[in-house]
Amino acid sequence: MRRFVVVGHNVNADGDFTLNDLCGGAGRLDVLLRCVTSAFFLSHGLRREVEVILHFPGQGGFQGLQPDGPKTVRLAGRELRYLNPDERSTGALVRTALLRKLPGPGERPSTPGIYVSRKSFDELVSSLPGPVQLAEDGEGWPPAGLPADTTFYLSDHHDFTPAEEESLRRANARRICLGPTSLHSHHCITVAHWLLDGGPSTGRPG
Amino acid sequence: MRRFVVVGHNVNADGDFTLNDLCGGAGRLDVLLRCVTSAFFLSHGLRREVEVILHFPGQGGFQGLQPDGPKTVRLAGRELRYLNPDERSTGALVRTALLRKLPGPGERPSTPGIYVSRKSFDELVSSLPGPVQLAEDGEGWPPAGLPADTTFYLSDHHDFTPAEEESLRRANARRICLGPTSLHSHHCITVAHWLLDGGPSTGRPG
Repeated sequence: MRRFVVVGHNVNADGDFTLNDLCGGAGRLDVLLRCVTSAFFLSHGLRREVEVILHFPGQGGFQGLQPDGPKTVRLAGRELRYLNPDERSTGALVRTALLRKLPGPGERPSTPGIYVSRKSFDELVSSLPGPVQLAEDGEGWPPAGLPADTTFYLSDHHDFTPAEEESLRRANARRICLGPTSLHSHHCITVAHWLLDGGPSTGRPG
Repeated sequence: MRRFVVVGHNVNADGDFTLNDLCGGAGRLDVLLRCVTSAFFLSHGLRREVEVILHFPGQGGFQGLQPDGPKTVRLAGRELRYLNPDERSTGALVRTALLRKLPGPGERPSTPGIYVSRKSFDELVSSLPGPVQLAEDGEGWPPAGLPADTTFYLSDHHDFTPAEEESLRRANARRICLGPTSLHSHHCITVAHWLLDGGPSTGRPG
């Protein structure tokens, strides 16, 4: 299982936003939606052995402006349906999950393959196996002994907060660097998949 | 210069579509918009030494349903302004270019860094240097002697038409394979950039 956790520090965790303004009023939800597409889509079909977890810290997050957090939306590749590669329709699925009533601490189903809970970032990090933080000062690729069950942690257009960094440190997350150029989170997911798939083709000789 | 030509066989080349339905009524323009984002965006800034050319074959294209083609929209990294990474705002820029009146055969400016013309696919292929077609049966990576000025050709969710394939063959386009997994066009652009940037980090040892 390849798992990608992406934190959206500014996203309105109450789901009260329009799909016409995903990069504005929704608090840069667009960044996370591109991560979802990069994580799941192949040219012909979905990567079923993938899980994406979108985390919205809410009041404890950046700028303290996000109501109704923390919330965590989990997309399970094995069960997903109705996922299309465009930002708007994926945004609608995530908004539906955020609008779901959450009376207790447990995880509740939203649309098929999508679940929502009030899990905190620290709870996530301490419960998911094989934590890896993609970081420019990390060890080079290929990392020795990467387990098959790996959880990659990425942030949106902001860095992780000191508290999030501390959670990752406590979980002994490995820090791995993909290359010399600083990329968007969803581009990192594409490259990580490609490397884990086996890297360049040995194809026919040039 | 890295140049990416992407063909949108089903896109309404007259620009008569709503931004709320980029993957439906606009004829899968969303696929090409993701290619634009992958081609230009770095974590902090734009790749200026990149050009993206979106080609809309129009009546000669798939299913014969696209009015007012062929049209070619060129995005020049060195001059681009107002480009954001989300699909909707990039779709607005491309639509503005497609709505531009084109009285003659020449290229006309639209918004800063974006130009539109009635160039055909064959005219494009015969005028741009270093043609490379990303293809699953191509030579493996790294390709020997790839010129610095390379034009990569990609198609949307459809294959190239026989006429397009013939144009590429006549231009002696090289066929290169990125890896064993079949990826979306915009994921191919991300991986190609990453490989051309120098591939994996040599980072600190793991």
